[in-house]
Amino acid sequence: MTVLVFLDSAFPDGRPADAGVPQLMINDLGVTRGDGIFESLLAVDGVPRKPDAHLDRMASSAQLLELEIPPRTAWERAIATALALHTEAETAGSTGRAAVKLVVTRGVEGAGTPTAWVQVTPASDASRQRSEGIRVLLLDRGYDSLAAARAPWLLLGAKTLSYAVNMAALRYARQNGADDAIFTSSDGKVLEGPTSTVVLARERDGVRTLLTPERKSGILAGTTQDALFRAAEAAGWELGYGPLVPEDLFAADGVWLASSIRLLVPVRSIDGRELPFSEVLNTELTKLADAAL
Amino acid sequence: MTVLVFLDSAFPDGRPADAGVPQLMINDLGVTRGDGIFESLLAVDGVPRKPDAHLDRMASSAQLLELEIPPRTAWERAIATALALHTEAETAGSTGRAAVKLVVTRGVEGAGTPTAWVQVTPASDASRQRSEGIRVLLLDRGYDSLAAARAPWLLLGAKTLSYAVNMAALRYARQNGADDAIFTSSDGKVLEGPTSTVVLARERDGVRTLLTPERKSGILAGTTQDALFRAAEAAGWELGYGPLVPEDLFAADGVWLASSIRLLVPVRSIDGRELPFSEVLNTELTKLADAAL
Repeated sequence: MTVLVFLDSAFPDGRPADAGVPQLMINDLGVTRGDGIFESLLAVDGVPRKPDAHLDRMASSAQLLELEIPPRTAWERAIATALALHTEAETAGSTGRAAVKLVVTRGVEGAGTPTAWVQVTPASDASRQRSEGIRVLLLDRGYDSLAAARAPWLLLGAKTLSYAVNMAALRYARQNGADDAIFTSSDGKVLEGPTSTVVLARERDGVRTLLTPERKSGILAGTTQDALFRAAEAAGWELGYGPLVPEDLFAADGVWLASSIRLLVPVRSIDGRELPFSEVLNTELTKLADAAL
Repeated sequence: MTVLVFLDSAFPDGRPADAGVPQLMINDLGVTRGDGIFESLLAVDGVPRKPDAHLDRMASSAQLLELEIPPRTAWERAIATALALHTEAETAGSTGRAAVKLVVTRGVEGAGTPTAWVQVTPASDASRQRSEGIRVLLLDRGYDSLAAARAPWLLLGAKTLSYAVNMAALRYARQNGADDAIFTSSDGKVLEGPTSTVVLARERDGVRTLLTPERKSGILAGTTQDALFRAAEAAGWELGYGPLVPEDLFAADGVWLASSIRLLVPVRSIDGRELPFSEVLNTELTKLADAAL
C-alpha cells in the first residue's frame, strides 16, 4: 500500500492522489535531469522520527541546488496527512513501521514551479542485516576530499535525485560478494555509504569514542548518525569527526552504517577482511540510536 | 506541441500517448534515483540525423548501467512514429527542426521492466549562439582523468538521467557572466561541456588539425564531434585526440562546443579571456558539420 500526497498551495494539508496511476509529467526535470532533492525518514505507529533534522537537511539541499521548495509547514502538514492515510489503510500484521519519502523536483521544463510530494510505504524489514551485519566493499568515489569546498556546482553534500552512481556502486558491491559499499575519496579518505553514514567505535584506555568522517569532505550530513552521537554523548561517549582513512576502520572496535530506515547495521567485513564485532556494543549502540530517534 | 510515444512490446510501432497529462509513476526509478539514460537528437523535416550514432551510444550507456533496454528496431519504429505525428501536427512557420529525446529508465521500483519513450518537440533556436558565439567558464569536474578507468561504478562516459551536476554547472556559469561551461579534471585536463563536446582547430605550418579531448578521460563520446571529424578528415584535416589542457584552448585558432541540437557553437571567451575567432573557419566547419549530419 503506497500513499501519495502532493504539496499544492491550493490544499494546505496536501492533495492526496492515487499512487497506482501515473502522476508525473514526462518532461518533469526530476526525471529528465535528475534535478531535485529528496529525504527518506522512518515513521513508527504513524509518528515521523526526527522530522526536523530531515526538513533541515532538505532545506540545505535546496539551497545547494538553488531550488525554491514549499514552506516547512506545508511539508509537515502533508506528512501528517500521508501518515494518517497510511495508518487508516494498514492491514493486520503491519509492523507499524513506514518509510516516508519527501521529494521535490525543479518541476516541468519551463514551468518554473517545483513538483513536490510525500510518499509513504511500509518500511522494508532490515532486522536480519541489523543483527547479522553486512559485508562491504571500499569503492573509490572519484572525488578528492577537497572537491566540495572548491566546486559548489558538484552539489556534494546535497541529497539529490541524481543517484545513478550510488545505485551503480550498490550493484557493483552485490555482484562482487558484498552487501553494500563505503566510498573513499581519490586521496584515500573514508567518505560515506551510497545510502548511509559511516560510524565507528573505538575504546582506548577506558575512553569510548564514536567517530564519523568529517562533513567538509563532501558527504551528506547523516541524520541518524547525528541522533546517535547526541544520545551517545549524553551516555558518556566521546565524539570524533574525521578525517578517517580505511586503516581506521580496520583498527576500530566496531563499524556501522547508519541510515534512517535501516538504522544501524554492523559491518562484519570490508573487502573480505573481517572486522571486530561485539554483540554487546551493537546492542548498546542500537538502543541508544532507537531511543534517540 | 510535444509528441510522446512509449516503447511497448504490445505495440511494434510504439504506443502514442498524451504528453499533456501525467504519464509516469511516482516511484519510477528514473525520477526517484535518476536511474536511466537518454539521448537527444535532431530531426530535420521529419528525418532523424545520425540515428545510428545515437542508438549506438545509448546501447553503450545501457551496458555501463547494466540496463536492459528495448531492441534497436523498437526505437527506430517509435522514432518514426513520433516524427510522423510531429510532422502532421506542425503549424505554419515551423522551422522543420525538431528535438527528439530518447529516454529509458530502470522502471517502477520492483517491477523490473524499463520505462522507455520517445519525445519530439520543436528544436529551440540556437542560430544566435551559432553566429555570435558564447562565453564559457572552466569548471572543475572533481574527478581526475584516470577515474573512469579505475572506477566503472562512476558511470563516466554514460549519458545518464543523473544530470543535476551538469545543470548546476550551467547555472553557476550563467550567474557568473558566462553562457556555458567546460569541465576540467582535477588533474588539469580539458574534459567536456555539461551538454556538449569540446572541439578545437589549429593551423600550424599549413597543416590544419581538429582536436578533441581523449575519451578515456571519462567523457561522453560526442556524436556531433565525431560526425564533424569524419567530414573534416575527408576534406583534408588532420585529427587529434587529446589529452588537452586549458592552455591548448587559448593557443588554438578556434574553439567550439559541439552538440546534436545546437550543433557547432563558437567559444568567444574562456574565463573572460578572449579567444581567436575566424568567421571563415566557423563557416567552413559549420558547413562540414551540417553536411555530415
